Amino acid sequence: MTNRRGFASDNQAGVLPEALAAMAAANGGHAPSYGADAWTARMQERFREHFGAGARAFPVFNGTAANVLAIEALTQPWEAVICARSAHMNMDECGAPERAGRKLLIADAPDGRLTPELAAPLVARVGDEHAVQARVLSITQSTELGTLYEPDEIAALADWAHGAGLLLHVDGARICNAAAALGVPLRAITVDVGVDAVSFGGTKLGLLGAEAVVLLRDDVGDGFLYRRKQAMQLASKMRFVSAQLDALLSGDVWLRAATHANAMAARLAAAVGGVAGVRITQAVRANAVFAVLEPAATQALQREWPFYVWDEATGEVRWMTAWDTAPEDVDAFAAAVRSATGSGPPRR
Amino acid sequence: MTNRRGFASDNQAGVLPEALAAMAAANGGHAPSYGADAWTARMQERFREHFGAGARAFPVFNGTAANVLAIEALTQPWEAVICARSAHMNMDECGAPERAGRKLLIADAPDGRLTPELAAPLVARVGDEHAVQARVLSITQSTELGTLYEPDEIAALADWAHGAGLLLHVDGARICNAAAALGVPLRAITVDVGVDAVSFGGTKLGLLGAEAVVLLRDDVGDGFLYRRKQAMQLASKMRFVSAQLDALLSGDVWLRAATHANAMAARLAAAVGGVAGVRITQAVRANAVFAVLEPAATQALQREWPFYVWDEATGEVRWMTAWDTAPEDVDAFAAAVRSATGSGPPRR
Amino acid sequence: MTNRRGFASDNQAGVLPEALAAMAAANGGHAPSYGADAWTARMQERFREHFGAGARAFPVFNGTAANVLAIEALTQPWEAVICARSAHMNMDECGAPERAGRKLLIADAPDGRLTPELAAPLVARVGDEHAVQARVLSITQSTELGTLYEPDEIAALADWAHGAGLLLHVDGARICNAAAALGVPLRAITVDVGVDAVSFGGTKLGLLGAEAVVLLRDDVGDGFLYRRKQAMQLASKMRFVSAQLDALLSGDVWLRAATHANAMAARLAAAVGGVAGVRITQAVRANAVFAVLEPAATQALQREWPFYVWDEATGEVRWMTAWDTAPEDVDAFAAAVRSATGSGPPRR
Amino acid sequence: MTNRRGFASDNQAGVLPEALAAMAAANGGHAPSYGADAWTARMQERFREHFGAGARAFPVFNGTAANVLAIEALTQPWEAVICARSAHMNMDECGAPERAGRKLLIADAPDGRLTPELAAPLVARVGDEHAVQARVLSITQSTELGTLYEPDEIAALADWAHGAGLLLHVDGARICNAAAALGVPLRAITVDVGVDAVSFGGTKLGLLGAEAVVLLRDDVGDGFLYRRKQAMQLASKMRFVSAQLDALLSGDVWLRAATHANAMAARLAAAVGGVAGVRITQAVRANAVFAVLEPAATQALQREWPFYVWDEATGEVRWMTAWDTAPEDVDAFAAAVRSATGSGPPRR
Repeated sequence: MTNRRGFASDNQAGVLPEALAAMAAANGGHAPSYGADAWTARMQERFREHFGAGARAFPVFNGTAANVLAIEALTQPWEAVICARSAHMNMDECGAPERAGRKLLIADAPDGRLTPELAAPLVARVGDEHAVQARVLSITQSTELGTLYEPDEIAALADWAHGAGLLLHVDGARICNAAAALGVPLRAITVDVGVDAVSFGGTKLGLLGAEAVVLLRDDVGDGFLYRRKQAMQLASKMRFVSAQLDALLSGDVWLRAATHANAMAARLAAAVGGVAGVRITQAVRANAVFAVLEPAATQALQREWPFYVWDEATGEVRWMTAWDTAPEDVDAFAAAVRSATGSGPPRR
Repeated sequence: MTNRRGFASDNQAGVLPEALAAMAAANGGHAPSYGADAWTARMQERFREHFGAGARAFPVFNGTAANVLAIEALTQPWEAVICARSAHMNMDECGAPERAGRKLLIADAPDGRLTPELAAPLVARVGDEHAVQARVLSITQSTELGTLYEPDEIAALADWAHGAGLLLHVDGARICNAAAALGVPLRAITVDVGVDAVSFGGTKLGLLGAEAVVLLRDDVGDGFLYRRKQAMQLASKMRFVSAQLDALLSGDVWLRAATHANAMAARLAAAVGGVAGVRITQAVRANAVFAVLEPAATQALQREWPFYVWDEATGEVRWMTAWDTAPEDVDAFAAAVRSATGSGPPRR
Repeated sequence: MTNRRGFASDNQAGVLPEALAAMAAANGGHAPSYGADAWTARMQERFREHFGAGARAFPVFNGTAANVLAIEALTQPWEAVICARSAHMNMDECGAPERAGRKLLIADAPDGRLTPELAAPLVARVGDEHAVQARVLSITQSTELGTLYEPDEIAALADWAHGAGLLLHVDGARICNAAAALGVPLRAITVDVGVDAVSFGGTKLGLLGAEAVVLLRDDVGDGFLYRRKQAMQLASKMRFVSAQLDALLSGDVWLRAATHANAMAARLAAAVGGVAGVRITQAVRANAVFAVLEPAATQALQREWPFYVWDEATGEVRWMTAWDTAPEDVDAFAAAVRSATGSGPPRR
Repeated sequence: MTNRRGFASDNQAGVLPEALAAMAAANGGHAPSYGADAWTARMQERFREHFGAGARAFPVFNGTAANVLAIEALTQPWEAVICARSAHMNMDECGAPERAGRKLLIADAPDGRLTPELAAPLVARVGDEHAVQARVLSITQSTELGTLYEPDEIAALADWAHGAGLLLHVDGARICNAAAALGVPLRAITVDVGVDAVSFGGTKLGLLGAEAVVLLRDDVGDGFLYRRKQAMQLASKMRFVSAQLDALLSGDVWLRAATHANAMAARLAAAVGGVAGVRITQAVRANAVFAVLEPAATQALQREWPFYVWDEATGEVRWMTAWDTAPEDVDAFAAAVRSATGSGPPRR
């Protein structure tokens, strides 16, 4: 086990200094548990700044919980969620949405991005008691493939969804990366364009087990506090979760961290994009680079650098950057890529 | 909102310096996520030291999750859990066990402590398809009422349970307090006396969202990793959870913290035990004092000091001490109790 | 296996001739499935006659399904149901309510009958996210112990429940027996006294797998058709279920069947009530007789007659009568009771 | 509402005379409830005759219940079921499998028939805690599209499934139609070719709410009786369900009924197959005909004859025949098809 900063996942990065400092600063004396503390109140204020005066944030421990609780809050048990095949809730949550009783309706989206056209066929058999009723459209921003929705694309999805009787949920495990890449505030890709609920991600950006369900409309989320408790997501020492979220959303902490991670992906893409034997497969917009390599090259690289093969069949790999990825990490890795693909001398 | 150290809950205390330091120390570079890291391996080693070579520990975020996952792992959907009426899983988890599909069978235990005699009537209708089948006996150590099971009492419960075809689970949200109070190692009240699974509590003793399901026999827990993920309890940056548990169980950290908290409760009990208008209702063994006061005295006290009324009907209150409760806190509070009950001058 | 008509359960009786005839009559040609048929429309009309113009009936296959679907329809996942310990949903449904995610809050009611005083302590911690929120009061009419609620007792329970923010559900597996015994129409113990939902029982009165959830207020039951389908309770050939319910509720079929069953219980109680060695333990109001016998007498009786021991500890037995119990069955059984208890010559 | 025998669904047909007669014959006196009766014992014997000495049959009320209980019995909560997109459990059960906590993994199969090649990509990420683990392959025989698996095709699927660590389930809502069409006994397409569990369908063939889960191997189904009760599928008057299944599987009742229904589909296909404006889209093997018509023709036909449009987008319709479809029904309908498509004179 090495502490080398690799390209396996932003989840493998450590904790932002600002988050650790916020926890240490919150560590004086006693404070009300379960959210009735000053840090949680400040955190709520931060979410209102970034997501509008009507935003209600509910800290939870991880992204799976944020997603499952968000869709539970937006649906009845017989209502279903439309998402892309690549969606985290479909691929990587071990059936937690279904464990909670919700059926997912899957659309194929080669670049991870849904459109009204892709989603529309899944709104079917409305009122037919034999069929689940589509109620939520869930998109991921930035997507699991490192691609982005433009604000007007989200607006169009929201318009379509609302017209079809659906609510729009954003899995924002990397929403800060998305906003940073687009150069817009968080509200420009959420509340301002019709999003109804967000799974706000802090962990991949450097927090320690701190995410939040953010509800953006008044008429959803009845009893959410009970749901969160039942889902085993109520932190007793919540001040330490809230303090981190507060720190991330204060000043430009989130923006700097996300911008840096994105820049490292861009640097990597630039460094390997022209290399023979490397074919970049998705637009590099946030903090991921997807590329196809020869298996032999991949295996050689993996001996030294941690990263994941995304698709064994095609040889596609995923390289993630993080808030703490250094330019030298990227340069060393790019050199290793060149070397493994036979396109350059090994880095000395 | 005040940072005064009150007597509301050990959950309102902050984080042990050792835990914060462990997190900071773990914060170098990247590490494999989801538990494949060095800190988690060390944490497993600690649990084996304290709970025997066969112990398998699975970190989760909070005590409700530890309880629910433990009982899910020990049961089939049609099997039930016997617990005391006062059990956290019955009273304070918002129906999370039932949300997971498990029925609780409730025994009345005035001091929070079950016995084979109290539990036996709930093992009934064995093999009758119309009735859930009792499969787990769950006890809490130390109990929600601050009382304790002696090692031989647990052994007797385990013998009875196993003889009746049940497994024995310990909700150990405060198991370190119990071991410290009894002056025995953790294994003496768990693996050595026949316990099959433990919800190991770290949070109430000063960790930041770090608990663990500890399975103590080989033939339970198939697929537990999947269950944990489905239950939304898999930490991506698990090293920071594991590092805390490792720190707590290294050297005498757990023992000092628990011993101190217990001592503060004893100090409080000693200070107010003889006060007119204060009737201590439960044996003070761990870090809780239960007492009955006049409502007027309670209300006067609560204006200055946070604590909970346990039973509105009887006027019973609960005073919890924590790892960070100072002797001066106790003395000041005891003086306030004397004053509020008209038994002494206000402390100057 | 014998076809002797015993006293084990009204579930062991056969099918009413009227029900068989109704099924045969419905068996001409094709009819829309899943309830869009003429028989189901007529059945709905019958329920409106008996339960008021606002009644909506949803056929299901058995009483457990009626209960579970009724309480699901009346609650959110974090809301709980108050019922008597003896309630079928607590004792005899193998945890089906909990499997559906609902916690039951249990009140002890020695005669199976709840009162506001018994239920009130279970409405606690309102608004506390750590506790399930009581939302439904469920009573059984006639009770599992053969006792009855008077109309004004139900009215008082409804008033109390509504005042406390609860809805009132009646498990009416034997509601026709109750109405017959009280000499009132079905509406006098349901819609007219504030009941919000009924599990209407047909099977125990002689139908073949035909029960119904009857919702009595407009503001509950959103999406009930989907819930029923998800709960695997939607009959494709529903006309045959509806035709039976229609037959039962047409003319005085239900009243005659129930009155007869009740009368047989009264006859039995009269015949054995004064027998030495037989102590009747519950008021005999509907179609059940509960009595305590010596174990030896019980065992002797069971060699010839099927019936259940209700409580092994006390020696209490349950004798149920049914729509098809004949006076001679009662007389023969009463003679056997006298003989087994040593109080009379064996019947010649 | 008409009693005309149309082509909407075999669920719209009535009840086989043999089934009604069996229920009437079972209606003498009392019998043990919940399956401890002589009819259920005989029914078990029938299933052993048809599905092998190791077969265990569990009556349930409908096909959705049979499917959900079968897959629950074959899986752990984190295990998934591979099925065709057209599978009833995916399309027509309102998410009941997901309500029970099981994720379905969907393969596209244009004719409703899975192959190892179609299923294999869904067995992925074995041992990865972030992904559900494929455990069951579920096929439908005859399929929802009226097509069939040959015995050797099922054998190949079973071989592949077992080799991949999966169990093979057959949704046999119309399995009698399939066996009749193939001219083989029921065991030739189930136990003899490696099938592990069957949802045996009686309702579509003329029973009144009588299906069965049939487990074909000893090492699955622990606690199935409890599961069935929890799933609200335990019939108290089970003799009337079992008597029907017994009647269907006695002598050649099932074979005659299924053969007839199949023959009527073949007759219809022959009559309209060559008609201009009618394109039959699936092989007509069992009791369904799928065809594409002009929407105007479909609408004209539907004014007189009940049937379903299967796919609004393509204009594909489904015509089902049943045990009671008469040759004259087919001929009249075929004439109407010719007329509606402008290919012949209206029937006089």
